[in-house]
Amino acid sequence: MKRPFTFINSAMSADGKISSFQRCQIRISGSKDLARVEALRAGSDAIMVGVGTILADNPSLRVKSKKLRDTRIKLRQPENPLRVVVDSTARTPLESNVLDQGCILAVSQAASEERLASLSQACEVLVCGLRKVDLKSLLTILYEKGVRRLMIEGGATLNWSLIKNGLVDEIYIYIGAMLIGGENAPPLVGGKGFSFSFPRLKLESLEKMDDGALIKWSISNF
Amino acid sequence: MKRPFTFINSAMSADGKISSFQRCQIRISGSKDLARVEALRAGSDAIMVGVGTILADNPSLRVKSKKLRDTRIKLRQPENPLRVVVDSTARTPLESNVLDQGCILAVSQAASEERLASLSQACEVLVCGLRKVDLKSLLTILYEKGVRRLMIEGGATLNWSLIKNGLVDEIYIYIGAMLIGGENAPPLVGGKGFSFSFPRLKLESLEKMDDGALIKWSISNF
Repeated sequence: MKRPFTFINSAMSADGKISSFQRCQIRISGSKDLARVEALRAGSDAIMVGVGTILADNPSLRVKSKKLRDTRIKLRQPENPLRVVVDSTARTPLESNVLDQGCILAVSQAASEERLASLSQACEVLVCGLRKVDLKSLLTILYEKGVRRLMIEGGATLNWSLIKNGLVDEIYIYIGAMLIGGENAPPLVGGKGFSFSFPRLKLESLEKMDDGALIKWSISNF
Repeated sequence: MKRPFTFINSAMSADGKISSFQRCQIRISGSKDLARVEALRAGSDAIMVGVGTILADNPSLRVKSKKLRDTRIKLRQPENPLRVVVDSTARTPLESNVLDQGCILAVSQAASEERLASLSQACEVLVCGLRKVDLKSLLTILYEKGVRRLMIEGGATLNWSLIKNGLVDEIYIYIGAMLIGGENAPPLVGGKGFSFSFPRLKLESLEKMDDGALIKWSISNF
């Protein structure tokens, strides 16, 4: 199976939470880390999130820095990477910032025709998978569309689904100097969780950044 | 309020989990880290855990290394630090490895007389708190008993209760080179979680250890 090189980038608190139990967006990282994330975005062909992240944070997923966008244009790339939303039942609100040209909504056959009719006015809709988006097929399709470097920006459920399917190559984790806590606060990797044969990582780099730390891991997908 | 210097030591997966959703004990850290933990134990006056940790892992909480125990004896300290179990309703099984001389079971007034009658044969029972153990009182009592350095070895609920009450000074987190995942897998800090004014940490040190990383944080308790 040909698929893009795929990496997760996420910030978490020192205790492994990406948000509070109320799912409010929390600024975990500092200015150096935000610049690093912008550069990672600008160096990617596509950025993917799950619908939960759209509903919680309403991100635009575009490159904010004009300089980085200009560099992309000079390299004959689109101004922004493709934006991909994994949304099995098409729950993305029509007014979401992520929508517009350059956005792909990946849905399953379980999505209602009505929702798809309206959403397809605002972005490209890809139906792949019966009840849930088939991530392997989706990554193959993205590869065929020219995506070689895919950045995942959460949340917990999409991270879990991709890792479980052996579709992630690297994980960048910024660890912020704060505690969030909570049995029900979203963790970095959600879903059911592994019960045996836990994915092993390799520590690629470790450095202090802002008030916290940046860790880069790689995963060997057997 | 006079209380011991209190620090949490815990290992978590790269995604912030201390165990899987099935709550089986997982070896997250390596041999260097285990030696570090032994030294931390031997350097403490008491080691505290919540009853959930007793029920899940049945730890002995004693110093395994004879050399470290001998050093304690030379310093005119007891062979092992005190072992303290926070167990509001006295659920600790009578056959638990933690029991015996040198173990204090901290319970609340909600614990049944019957359970307390049997458990008080096997350890010292301290009743403090109405429905739940009052941790501030407990730490004051431990201080009066001579405990100046208190090590917390989890789990998620005890970590949360102590942090919420501003009773923790430092946190050592060993981050293992593995993923565990799971919405319901125990995180480093459980409970309800913070929703605003998240405790801020200060990064004291960061180093590679075994296949993972060791981070030491301090907390400023206003």
